[in-house]
Amino acid sequence: MLGTTYEAQNCSAARTLEIVGERWSLLILRDVLFRGTTRFSQFQRSLGIAPNILANRLETFVATGLLERRSDQGEKDALHYFPTPKGADLKPVIMALTSWGDRWASPNGPPVFFQHAGCDGHVAITCMCGRCGKGLTPSEIAAVPTATPKAKRSQRS
Amino acid sequence: MLGTTYEAQNCSAARTLEIVGERWSLLILRDVLFRGTTRFSQFQRSLGIAPNILANRLETFVATGLLERRSDQGEKDALHYFPTPKGADLKPVIMALTSWGDRWASPNGPPVFFQHAGCDGHVAITCMCGRCGKGLTPSEIAAVPTATPKAKRSQRS
Repeated sequence: MLGTTYEAQNCSAARTLEIVGERWSLLILRDVLFRGTTRFSQFQRSLGIAPNILANRLETFVATGLLERRSDQGEKDALHYFPTPKGADLKPVIMALTSWGDRWASPNGPPVFFQHAGCDGHVAITCMCGRCGKGLTPSEIAAVPTATPKAKRSQRS
Repeated sequence: MLGTTYEAQNCSAARTLEIVGERWSLLILRDVLFRGTTRFSQFQRSLGIAPNILANRLETFVATGLLERRSDQGEKDALHYFPTPKGADLKPVIMALTSWGDRWASPNGPPVFFQHAGCDGHVAITCMCGRCGKGLTPSEIAAVPTATPKAKRSQRS
């Protein structure tokens, strides 16, 4: 489906999707990042995923540096998978996907909400301007190529 | 690849990915939302995408309510595709995917940055607590099922 020119697209969003966009991958990362799941057997129970697919995804996540594998000596199910900083940094991505799905594709209401562990407040994904500090609506945001003179001007700001 | 139990996962993030997660779809939406592309011929030129795939994706986006089709009488390439509010609301999703890709999967540096149209400042995706107003790091955020008593307590706050 992707044709030969897809790879030519210089797009960070597409590159992220290459890594996390497969849907089992997303659910595994959701379990690691938001449910504290670390063991093979826990993922299997939570997701009902086939063992060979799960093993393959976990292996890929370790290879791409999203998860780190550690073993606990003396335990039966001794391998644990923990998020690296690169993996943990996917939390806002999953939150943005979730927020949109909650608003537009969730007939039975949002299944979860995001909570600030410090004060129990609800957490929302916001687009913030680094100069004026305003929270922005989608229509106020433009994408500017970094190579243009305008982009260079703004980067200095 | 998705197995039979995938559909049982009640996950808004996964549902969003069902709609926008195919990679040509993401690039088409990026062009509509951030480059102001509206015409079939413009998408083709920008993406080098096969016409049948492009036609199929645009049709799907109109059917799912992400894009609206309008025609300009008297023009040759008369059909235009504009984002609906549901489609425009995907901007933060694409921005979150882009930010992560910029940080972790962009060997030549970020291809674009996001700019506040009002003041030219850089725009960043932020996780904000609705109670204390703090910008949060990934480790400070938990996901809580909405059905639990704790979730209900926090929703009132």
